[in-house]
Amino acid sequence: MTTYAQNLNEILDREALPAGGVVSGDVDYVAHGVAFRGYQARPAGGGPYPGILVVHDWLGVTDYVRMRCDMLARLGYAAFAADVYGADMRPAPQDAAAVASGFYQDRALWRQRLAAAFEWLLAEPSVDPARTAAIGYCFGGTSVMELARTGAPVDAVVSFHGGLLTGPAGEATRITAKVLVLHGAADPVAPDDALLAFENDLRTAPEIDWQIVTYANAMHAFTLPDANAPEHGALFDATAERRSWTAMKSFLNEVFD
Amino acid sequence: MTTYAQNLNEILDREALPAGGVVSGDVDYVAHGVAFRGYQARPAGGGPYPGILVVHDWLGVTDYVRMRCDMLARLGYAAFAADVYGADMRPAPQDAAAVASGFYQDRALWRQRLAAAFEWLLAEPSVDPARTAAIGYCFGGTSVMELARTGAPVDAVVSFHGGLLTGPAGEATRITAKVLVLHGAADPVAPDDALLAFENDLRTAPEIDWQIVTYANAMHAFTLPDANAPEHGALFDATAERRSWTAMKSFLNEVFD
Repeated sequence: MTTYAQNLNEILDREALPAGGVVSGDVDYVAHGVAFRGYQARPAGGGPYPGILVVHDWLGVTDYVRMRCDMLARLGYAAFAADVYGADMRPAPQDAAAVASGFYQDRALWRQRLAAAFEWLLAEPSVDPARTAAIGYCFGGTSVMELARTGAPVDAVVSFHGGLLTGPAGEATRITAKVLVLHGAADPVAPDDALLAFENDLRTAPEIDWQIVTYANAMHAFTLPDANAPEHGALFDATAERRSWTAMKSFLNEVFD
Repeated sequence: MTTYAQNLNEILDREALPAGGVVSGDVDYVAHGVAFRGYQARPAGGGPYPGILVVHDWLGVTDYVRMRCDMLARLGYAAFAADVYGADMRPAPQDAAAVASGFYQDRALWRQRLAAAFEWLLAEPSVDPARTAAIGYCFGGTSVMELARTGAPVDAVVSFHGGLLTGPAGEATRITAKVLVLHGAADPVAPDDALLAFENDLRTAPEIDWQIVTYANAMHAFTLPDANAPEHGALFDATAERRSWTAMKSFLNEVFD
């Protein structure tokens, strides 16, 4: 098992390690000629398990998403941290916005990378490909909505403090996933007008099953223990972190039970 | 135990009757010279339990709120259905809007009635007065926010498809309760602009701990099995009913654990 910093371990240990244990490790995969390095964690033995794609924030695959995969494995899911950036791309914090921005500006490439990771998940033997979800943080939250907008056969997507983009008119009708958006009321990346535009876009397709939870005072990145830039509207919020994880668990229970 | 219609029983029976059983019955009380008839349900024996005030929709105290009290008792709470209208006032559906409107137009009377019911709850021997919450449906959802706005020492309030009123500037600072608003995205009683005004009013008091959950396509009265007037924007929604109850349980667990 990966050894994490104390502030990540405290979150991880809210979920008890199952008696059978958890298997985890790096995943090297190649798609469209590009090498990627993700991470996998799943219950030992048994299965197949519902598969959860975990999409990273703008720093790429870090201990944060590895820890979230471990938490999901403790809950009985086969979790896979996608690598959207590519194995060679682990930006320093000051470069991360520019790297993420490249994907915001090339949604075709972004979606291709997400599709490749989702296909890896579907093909993994420990995963029941008929029971899958995708969750993501910041850039990853925006990403799981992008995946849903492709019409990918994912049962559910959960965005934690994601940017809330809309797509071309009519595209929302392709969404078949149930959607849960966990949103900070003080997140400058997704202010009220963006949230309303996002809702109104989903409303154009009344068959979509979506929910939005808004947490008072929570800023961008509210689930990341290292987020500490309130002057830029990004700050860890222990209450919203716990509540949003609980909301996700309840949602996944409903989807997979 | 009260015998309910089948559509209420199906909701009630999602919570298992505890081994020790539940005590329930009408509560006659008088305040400011007016007679009221509420309803109480609590676990048999033991206690004191966290106390939950349950505020009715515009029809007054009906089997619907009695059933919700019974559900709360099965969960280990001492529940009390407030009677805001008075024992003699049980409006027919076609008269209910006018009766509720009288309280919207006389917030002092409305708050006096809510305070009287809350005081009854605090004085009930089975209730731990240091651990209380208030939940409400439609008119009752609006009501629990009114109670919170008085600065009443209630730990938490939960509004199910309540109207979302604001108060005089600065009044929100009196709210000490944690707030959970469970809201239908297609509720014409609380459209987007009312929701935003409500949020912005709460934002004037950053110390308030509030959350809003918005459910896709859910209309007004979405938890009421008999609501069937989509032409007026009111309709039962079984999915939103279940999810909102689950969200309330998770919230009360957090508040009282």
